[in-house]
Amino acid sequence: MEKPEEVLTRLKTKLLEIHHLKDAAALLAWDQETYMPPGAGQARAEHLAALQTMAHDKLVSPELENLLRPVLNPATGLVQDRYSGWAPSTKALLRETWRDFTRAKKLPSAFVNRLERECSLAQQVWADARKNNDFAQFLPNLRTIIALKREEAHYLGYTDSPYNALLDTYEPGWTVAHLKPLLTTLRRRLVTLLNRVRKASTKPHEAILFQSFDRDRQMEFSRMVLAKMGYDFQRGRVDLSAHPFTTSFHPTDVRVTTRVYEHELPACLFSCIHEGGHGLYEQGLRNEFYGTPLSEPISCGMHESQSRLWENCVGRSRPFWEHFFPLLQHAFPEQLGQTSLEQFYAAINTVKPSLIRVEADEVTYNLHIMVRFEIELELIEERVSVENLPSLWNEKMKEYLGVVPERDADGILQDIHWAIGAFGYFPTYTLGNLYAAMLYQQACKDLPNIEADIAQGRLLPLKEWLNEKIHRWGRQFTSEEIIQQVTGENLSAEPFLQYLETKIEKVYYSGSYS
Amino acid sequence: MEKPEEVLTRLKTKLLEIHHLKDAAALLAWDQETYMPPGAGQARAEHLAALQTMAHDKLVSPELENLLRPVLNPATGLVQDRYSGWAPSTKALLRETWRDFTRAKKLPSAFVNRLERECSLAQQVWADARKNNDFAQFLPNLRTIIALKREEAHYLGYTDSPYNALLDTYEPGWTVAHLKPLLTTLRRRLVTLLNRVRKASTKPHEAILFQSFDRDRQMEFSRMVLAKMGYDFQRGRVDLSAHPFTTSFHPTDVRVTTRVYEHELPACLFSCIHEGGHGLYEQGLRNEFYGTPLSEPISCGMHESQSRLWENCVGRSRPFWEHFFPLLQHAFPEQLGQTSLEQFYAAINTVKPSLIRVEADEVTYNLHIMVRFEIELELIEERVSVENLPSLWNEKMKEYLGVVPERDADGILQDIHWAIGAFGYFPTYTLGNLYAAMLYQQACKDLPNIEADIAQGRLLPLKEWLNEKIHRWGRQFTSEEIIQQVTGENLSAEPFLQYLETKIEKVYYSGSYS
Repeated sequence: MEKPEEVLTRLKTKLLEIHHLKDAAALLAWDQETYMPPGAGQARAEHLAALQTMAHDKLVSPELENLLRPVLNPATGLVQDRYSGWAPSTKALLRETWRDFTRAKKLPSAFVNRLERECSLAQQVWADARKNNDFAQFLPNLRTIIALKREEAHYLGYTDSPYNALLDTYEPGWTVAHLKPLLTTLRRRLVTLLNRVRKASTKPHEAILFQSFDRDRQMEFSRMVLAKMGYDFQRGRVDLSAHPFTTSFHPTDVRVTTRVYEHELPACLFSCIHEGGHGLYEQGLRNEFYGTPLSEPISCGMHESQSRLWENCVGRSRPFWEHFFPLLQHAFPEQLGQTSLEQFYAAINTVKPSLIRVEADEVTYNLHIMVRFEIELELIEERVSVENLPSLWNEKMKEYLGVVPERDADGILQDIHWAIGAFGYFPTYTLGNLYAAMLYQQACKDLPNIEADIAQGRLLPLKEWLNEKIHRWGRQFTSEEIIQQVTGENLSAEPFLQYLETKIEKVYYSGSYS
Repeated sequence: MEKPEEVLTRLKTKLLEIHHLKDAAALLAWDQETYMPPGAGQARAEHLAALQTMAHDKLVSPELENLLRPVLNPATGLVQDRYSGWAPSTKALLRETWRDFTRAKKLPSAFVNRLERECSLAQQVWADARKNNDFAQFLPNLRTIIALKREEAHYLGYTDSPYNALLDTYEPGWTVAHLKPLLTTLRRRLVTLLNRVRKASTKPHEAILFQSFDRDRQMEFSRMVLAKMGYDFQRGRVDLSAHPFTTSFHPTDVRVTTRVYEHELPACLFSCIHEGGHGLYEQGLRNEFYGTPLSEPISCGMHESQSRLWENCVGRSRPFWEHFFPLLQHAFPEQLGQTSLEQFYAAINTVKPSLIRVEADEVTYNLHIMVRFEIELELIEERVSVENLPSLWNEKMKEYLGVVPERDADGILQDIHWAIGAFGYFPTYTLGNLYAAMLYQQACKDLPNIEADIAQGRLLPLKEWLNEKIHRWGRQFTSEEIIQQVTGENLSAEPFLQYLETKIEKVYYSGSYS
């Protein structure tokens, strides 16, 4: 059992079975959000729980452990010294599988089943509660989920805060202590930036984005942009769902969803570009490693960096619209025929504190994240009771953004995450923004013509650069390693803040757009 | 281990796991036909094979066997004498589970995996070959499938013909010897009936069905009919696919598909009613037995009886259109405003030998089945070589129906069944027609107002009668038992032939419709 090929072959067979179960669950989950009949909710919850439990049980089976233990140092997941000559990809595959195994091993099977079922149910209650603007309806489910997530943190183990155990699920290696200084810096500079926006005398004329735009034509335009980005429709599709998301069942089947509002041009357009960024990551993973960590994304933050890079660094950039704005005008001549490129560019970069995170501009977006993060940290650390969430939410929104929702549906109930048990997920959005700015800055260095290319509608060089630098590696490197490897630097908020400060200066202080 | 509750509880837990795998596979298969991106075919084939193999492996596990063996007579699947006081439903559940177990046990896991993968691939090649009208393209896959099905028959065991092993999969207990006399009677009487149609001087004016009909409006009308039938859209949906089908993942999630052609009114309408009949069966199975044979349909023939009863006995009946024709005229006033009910009724009952089975009238339909059945019997018994299929097909079509396809796409390639390994399935269509006529005849006896109800658009009494007599029982009774129990008779072709002879007489000899 010393040949890496032998270990790998047996390991891959086991992992493939697990992935087949997980990817079946992913299709069930996609279907739940897109096409499932409403009456099937309860059965679907049981079905998802059953598949996830089977996947979990296979992952923690002695077979897998017996395969890994002889070649690894169980404390680190690194191969033992005598195997140090094995290929780096093999070593990474083993290390990441061991990480998955040891984390899963800590969770009892019955707990996994219960968590999955409760989350699937809570998700349906949340959707209803949000529609009814009724936080009380969701409260019992939320309380259950929080208790389960605390229990999960307890099983997983942690230092300092149980939140760290959850955060590590989405962003391996990250802790609250690691996050806080970043967030402090961000908060200070973003609030300064927001004040500078408030003082500006020229304001973008945002109303042009909120005229009536034919929904089919919006979809057609967005599909065209996705195709230009290199999103492969032979291996993907776009559907409608209440909340846009990306899911993958294999690198040859990566699906995005969007929403289309007649009176909100940005909704469909930017959610397609955003999800398209996620989709390119998944389509860029390597088929030949399907089933293993080498064909999985590194972390939620790195995934988000791909969507935010495309949505913001590219999709809200001047060069991008040099090419696409005339096409958009062609699609909507009555609405946009009299609008200049400068006016449009300013409109899509309007900064204005608002209630809904997913529609927030680049300046206030991370302030929304801070609100969520601080509240969920208090929840997991048992420093706040669930009943008080709406008022706590409103206080923090007032403090950070200066706006307060009139309805819980636009406040505490706006996001699905807690309903699906995704505590510890929100900070990865901010990390995604920071990674994105660093990566895009580096892309501009590595590809000196990139902005000229984009201005000509040539988006493939950037896509291929991302394929090469990020996507193809799967989990071979950690997010820290890959950022270091690609940019030569460690993660910092500076590139993001500089990028944003420059853009805001341009939009708010060097033009007249009204 | 002598209490039925104990056996049942443990058994149900095992069976539920198996069903969750199978129903995940069913969703993957539905998705493959409706929304899957084209490039995902290869991965989907692997994925389906993996899930089916896991389900198979769980079914044949010693755990299940150890649970069943102590309480059953392994030769019959009946509970041992000392348990004869157990509830009939419990005994049936055990008997049918034992049947599934013993059949599955005969198939090696690697064989199941290979068969599933080859079928999923062959299905995709078949679709392409049919589009290209290229039998040679499909030939290697078909050859593989036939060899695998022969192998399957060999594993399963049989007397007389390997075909019997396959037929028994779809229609438990049926054999070639059992079928042949039925088919002989049918053939003689149907050919006589066809000659009577040929000699009739009045002919229905079929062209009214082939005008231009807005596709969306067709769908809307069909959905309305489905709702009237009692098909529950809270627990179901309609999608488009190349070939209409019904699938179920749970009684609360039963989906039908249809196709819509602008210039063929019958296509969408009758495939919706047909699939709706299948859908009502699946929606009528009992939730509380989900996962067990008591929440599964009896046989393919009994399933088909439900679809054909609705499609033909109801959907092509005069009372049905007394209610629905005015509504159809309202939906398509330009096309049908000048057509009388009599003309429409005659048009939808036109008898005309044609190439495509699924579009065949009630007289020629079973002749199509005989063509398929005889050919597949020869294939499985190795009495014909695959290369000769197109010419054999054409000869038989000439002999039975008097028509010969110009293209293999309209001939040997028209049906998906062989591509998915469903050898032995075709005869169940004919059995379905025969069961349907017997059941509908009985429904008219049990519910004396049924035709008056239907003529008022009240279809629910019939649906509820079927729920009560057929659906709710699942596999508690065999098809022979249930037909005997509901009608007091054994299966016979007579009710079907009488029903059809009466209708043909009415349409072709007692009116003037041109």
